[in-house]
Amino acid sequence: MSDPTLQGAALDARVVAADHDRVLHSWSAQAHLPDFVVAGGLGSTVWNHEGRRWLDFSSQLVNTNIGHQHPAVVEAIREQASVLTTIAPSTANRTRAEAAERILARAPEGMRKVFFTNGGADAIENSIRMARLHTGRDKVVSTYRSYHGNTGAAVVATGDWRRIPNEFARGHVHVFGPYLYRSEFWATTVEEERDRALHHLERVIQAEGPTSVAAILLETIPGTAGVLVPPPGYLAGVREIADRYGIVLILDEVMAGFGRTGSWLALDQHDVRPDLVAFAKGVNSGYVPAGGVMVSAEIAATFDERVFPGGLTYSGHPLAMAAIVATLDAMEREGIVENAARVGRDVLGPGLAALAATNPLVGEVRGTGVFWAVELVSDRDTREPVSAATMADVKSRLLAAGYLPFVAENRVHVVPPCVITPDEARQGLDLLAGVLSDVAAAGTARVAAPAER
Amino acid sequence: MSDPTLQGAALDARVVAADHDRVLHSWSAQAHLPDFVVAGGLGSTVWNHEGRRWLDFSSQLVNTNIGHQHPAVVEAIREQASVLTTIAPSTANRTRAEAAERILARAPEGMRKVFFTNGGADAIENSIRMARLHTGRDKVVSTYRSYHGNTGAAVVATGDWRRIPNEFARGHVHVFGPYLYRSEFWATTVEEERDRALHHLERVIQAEGPTSVAAILLETIPGTAGVLVPPPGYLAGVREIADRYGIVLILDEVMAGFGRTGSWLALDQHDVRPDLVAFAKGVNSGYVPAGGVMVSAEIAATFDERVFPGGLTYSGHPLAMAAIVATLDAMEREGIVENAARVGRDVLGPGLAALAATNPLVGEVRGTGVFWAVELVSDRDTREPVSAATMADVKSRLLAAGYLPFVAENRVHVVPPCVITPDEARQGLDLLAGVLSDVAAAGTARVAAPAER
Repeated sequence: MSDPTLQGAALDARVVAADHDRVLHSWSAQAHLPDFVVAGGLGSTVWNHEGRRWLDFSSQLVNTNIGHQHPAVVEAIREQASVLTTIAPSTANRTRAEAAERILARAPEGMRKVFFTNGGADAIENSIRMARLHTGRDKVVSTYRSYHGNTGAAVVATGDWRRIPNEFARGHVHVFGPYLYRSEFWATTVEEERDRALHHLERVIQAEGPTSVAAILLETIPGTAGVLVPPPGYLAGVREIADRYGIVLILDEVMAGFGRTGSWLALDQHDVRPDLVAFAKGVNSGYVPAGGVMVSAEIAATFDERVFPGGLTYSGHPLAMAAIVATLDAMEREGIVENAARVGRDVLGPGLAALAATNPLVGEVRGTGVFWAVELVSDRDTREPVSAATMADVKSRLLAAGYLPFVAENRVHVVPPCVITPDEARQGLDLLAGVLSDVAAAGTARVAAPAER
Repeated sequence: MSDPTLQGAALDARVVAADHDRVLHSWSAQAHLPDFVVAGGLGSTVWNHEGRRWLDFSSQLVNTNIGHQHPAVVEAIREQASVLTTIAPSTANRTRAEAAERILARAPEGMRKVFFTNGGADAIENSIRMARLHTGRDKVVSTYRSYHGNTGAAVVATGDWRRIPNEFARGHVHVFGPYLYRSEFWATTVEEERDRALHHLERVIQAEGPTSVAAILLETIPGTAGVLVPPPGYLAGVREIADRYGIVLILDEVMAGFGRTGSWLALDQHDVRPDLVAFAKGVNSGYVPAGGVMVSAEIAATFDERVFPGGLTYSGHPLAMAAIVATLDAMEREGIVENAARVGRDVLGPGLAALAATNPLVGEVRGTGVFWAVELVSDRDTREPVSAATMADVKSRLLAAGYLPFVAENRVHVVPPCVITPDEARQGLDLLAGVLSDVAAAGTARVAAPAER
């Protein structure tokens, strides 16, 4: 990286070489890393040093809800950096108090305080800890199709494969959540799926012993697991079960919160009152690492006279707090949440429905706002997921077409920033439709001519 | 916070009220929070809105090694904010490759790659995970007097009281480390303490079953536990034990690393070769939340073809990386590590030794660089720690005198920024000596006249 005259494609190549040589990357085999450089971005677009541009339909890791390099947030970070970057969590600081005020103004009824963390995983860690200390119980019930973060307890709360090699915490119980397209309950209607998922949840809690269960932990809309929008009434039913057994309800809004669904929080679209809400990502679009937990008055009071045994050096970090204040103010001022709702309703929803109607690879599309999943199948009747090789093909074709995708298992998640314009959304949908049409045609061709494989 | 005309002491009061009303603070009972506002800082000084100033002998949470608001680091953050704040961890980015290069240039022999995290706790989480996957074993041996962070596995690795209410991981075993002043081994000399601590460690490993032990996890110098500088040869002995049984040696340099001890890493002062080194805090003084793990060539190779099952959205965050590059470059350019060594050798070491010689409350002082502990006792013979009430008295008197302290159990840790000048160090020592002298006198008075209590 020592040659300042390098630029363009040569600089991209050098950055890739230096990165792959020295950086150990998450969730990857290091001998098989992608050669993708991001040098800058604005709004819904990113580019490399060569000047190639991609429409960002990933929002990176579904975090840049306000788009790349929003000028008001950048300026707030620059200003705060000049005043005070960091301060110990025990001291009071103006920016931190303002960030808590902004978040509580968007919180559901009954929320009283905010505990700040560095990201989503430690938000989940601390919400689990609060629930355990508040109830005096140990077990945490979460779903198999879920992702709650990567630290000791958070990764075991997680229900996807990433839990397995990291399983070193105890007291975690997993249940199946509602997912009609691949129902675990032999359900054929939304209502049946909802009622049976609730029955299953309650039966597991009864079998585990209700007085041993501290918390039910759910993503309001499971995200990486497939944008699994819950049936109407499901979360209200979970609340009833939690109340019946004195269990704390933790909603994980790390990915779904702060605009992604077309409302401020995903839970705003459901009739549910959580006790704790974990957040990160969209709260400041990840411009500075930050997360936290909204805490109900009842649970907050548990720690008035009793020490809360948890903490971290950068809890309520001023630079992160300044980015939160500026992000939430800009989202309000510029109607960014409303934009996400509108783009979802007018462009992404109808466009993806049309794709599902015409492309044989598409098994189901589902979502809300700028939070959608396109599920790809090799057979629409059996719903057999397409192969990993097909997904790799889809991903590389999308990148080549100038579309930066978020790919998970057999799905393309359509998750652009909340600031995406209707034109950009249509442009992205066209690229996606084109690639999926090519892949469908190629797949048919391959099946027709196996000798060419 | 909505009244922009507020300033001075009125603004401080408003900030405290708003903060305590809405922010849930770490490691605290919320009804008993300190009324301390930080509005800004520079170098070794912080101030509130009223303009009261404190000499920062805490470095906040022992993280602002480069001092407050170092202009080169602030400018680097401002510049990076204007270019690119955040990017997904899977993509390559120039600033991230440069940060890895800078860190590996300071790493011990044999280190090959860097895995980036948001802070120290998740650095420990991921180093434990790497050790478990590399060895195929589960158990992690750490010491009772230690602190390794607040997440699921990290907090259980921790050996202080903060482990107890958070104990939800398995596979953690604790041993006693060397601490001659309060020896667990009936030792009377440094050599005896070293040899017996090594013997104890090896016996526990043998008793647990050596082939079940994945890692020995140690702070190079246990920090919050009391700046417990290990005896010469102890860490080399631990390395021998690790090698004998095929165990990974993880050194936690989160608090001790990057200048604090008067060398780049604390391990530079010991004859030891770790397999993994966890870092955070000093690497960029916490100006932007960041941490990570230095990974040996051997362990890095484990994840060439095998997926490393760990990750987080802000791994290698560009803003954090820019702060790392600027911090390490400024520390090199301005001789900040050498300054820490010099201040420790010429001012803090002799000054604290003089304090120990003259003040009856001081049981022991120990440390190196700008990393010292002053242990306060009510009886020098029995070494009985002073009471919590005495420590609260010491703390409030120091704050009133304009000295911002780091207090842990019965100790005052003398941990100013590495940039502190000899004059500031002398000034801080004078304030500390004055307060401890007053407290000693008051304590004697109280003992002499119990009716006044």
